[in-house]
Amino acid sequence: MSDAPTAAIVGLGLIGGSLARDLAARGIRILGYDCDPDVLAQALSAGIVRQRLSSTMAGLAAADWVVLATPPDAAPEAIERMRGHVGRSRLITDVGSVKRGIVAAAERLGLGSRFVGAHPIAGDTRSGWGASRAGLFAGARVYLCPTRETTPAARGEAEALWGLCGARTEVLSPEAHDRTVAWTSHLPQVAASALALALGDAGIAARDLGPGGRSATRLAASPAGMWTGIASENADALAPALAALEARLAEARRALERRDRAALHAFFEGSATWAAQDG
Amino acid sequence: MSDAPTAAIVGLGLIGGSLARDLAARGIRILGYDCDPDVLAQALSAGIVRQRLSSTMAGLAAADWVVLATPPDAAPEAIERMRGHVGRSRLITDVGSVKRGIVAAAERLGLGSRFVGAHPIAGDTRSGWGASRAGLFAGARVYLCPTRETTPAARGEAEALWGLCGARTEVLSPEAHDRTVAWTSHLPQVAASALALALGDAGIAARDLGPGGRSATRLAASPAGMWTGIASENADALAPALAALEARLAEARRALERRDRAALHAFFEGSATWAAQDG
Repeated sequence: MSDAPTAAIVGLGLIGGSLARDLAARGIRILGYDCDPDVLAQALSAGIVRQRLSSTMAGLAAADWVVLATPPDAAPEAIERMRGHVGRSRLITDVGSVKRGIVAAAERLGLGSRFVGAHPIAGDTRSGWGASRAGLFAGARVYLCPTRETTPAARGEAEALWGLCGARTEVLSPEAHDRTVAWTSHLPQVAASALALALGDAGIAARDLGPGGRSATRLAASPAGMWTGIASENADALAPALAALEARLAEARRALERRDRAALHAFFEGSATWAAQDG
Repeated sequence: MSDAPTAAIVGLGLIGGSLARDLAARGIRILGYDCDPDVLAQALSAGIVRQRLSSTMAGLAAADWVVLATPPDAAPEAIERMRGHVGRSRLITDVGSVKRGIVAAAERLGLGSRFVGAHPIAGDTRSGWGASRAGLFAGARVYLCPTRETTPAARGEAEALWGLCGARTEVLSPEAHDRTVAWTSHLPQVAASALALALGDAGIAARDLGPGGRSATRLAASPAGMWTGIASENADALAPALAALEARLAEARRALERRDRAALHAFFEGSATWAAQDG
């Protein structure tokens, strides 16, 4: 790339907003859109977004990179709306937490050669432009999921985009990605939410917890709408992960019920060994 | 109290060691014991422990406050060994995570009038003298569980002791305490350990997780021996809490299996509402 590219970011929430901040700080010209006009006005007046995109997406034609950063439920419709306006773009990408659907949609819409799905493993239980910040992706892992037709050049552009944010990219097929994050991300989320609900049922409030319980339930605050979309989309991979967690909990409960200290020790020892793997 | 009291601390691990550091910094003279002679030597050479106690506990006679801070499994035997040596002590207390057994033991041994069970809600997944530190209890909640015979004076001494560490005390019966911590502390521990084991079964390492997953599994590193003791001792209160968590997880799994978005939304919304209660 000789000149710094222009990036269009559609959706200025936690992820899209943080990406806009990082790229703008690197001299990238940002075209921005958000369905909330107040958010768009804030991003413009902060000098992060240089030019407003209209809801028709007509202005996308000027963008080298197009980043879809809507909530997961809005992505299929948004990529369809973009389709006719991405004429000269070298890269079309997204930031969603589940990748099979969006990668298949890009292929179906004839965008496969320029599309690279992306999923940054960074975030916050807060959401929206107000929670976005520079540096969110520094040192974070970003999964890249090419389509069956993605060109090496488009993949290189995706790596360049995330490299500007200080992230480490890792390429996975959409299938392998969705299976992996069912365990690494979606299962911990549902576990924390289930723990919060069980505590609430027992009349325990978050303020009653010590530091350990607060850590275990930190994710419980995550936005419900977003997680309904993610969990629904990855239901086939997530349900067996939940069953596996239920089985491990039942194992501990049965050991308690029969006062089996050896089984309990093996349970806690296995957990500590897993945690110590990283050194 | 006119003169600063002398405190005997039996067991210089994370909790006993941190308590020794805080009390020593307030001018309290610390008599110390640990079954590991190296730990005792370190505590003496650091100037935290002023005088070594022998394993016979004979030197306890000089202590105004006697604090039992052994691992939970060693506590019943340790309090029995102390019994003949606590002649002039105004307070005998402990720091264990389960309170019915130790409070009953103190009553049985005729120490009831001077005994106040204590459980500081502070800690770390690391353990031992090496992990102990000043200020561990600053702002922390400490549950106090009097016996049926504890005098107001002894209770006042326990409040003074923890007040010196900057902790907030809260009085509960041993039964109410054990029921409460089964939910607030023991359930999150088992949930994090079960999650770690389920992830390990699926070939996921701790380094594969993002910040959310790391938070949800942080407690998995806790010492296995200590937690075997705690969970065993509170098995009757903990097992139903685990069953409640299993039920909430099964509810989420079944909603995924039947692709029930409304049920999933209610699940995540309930969790976020619980988390937002504290404002």
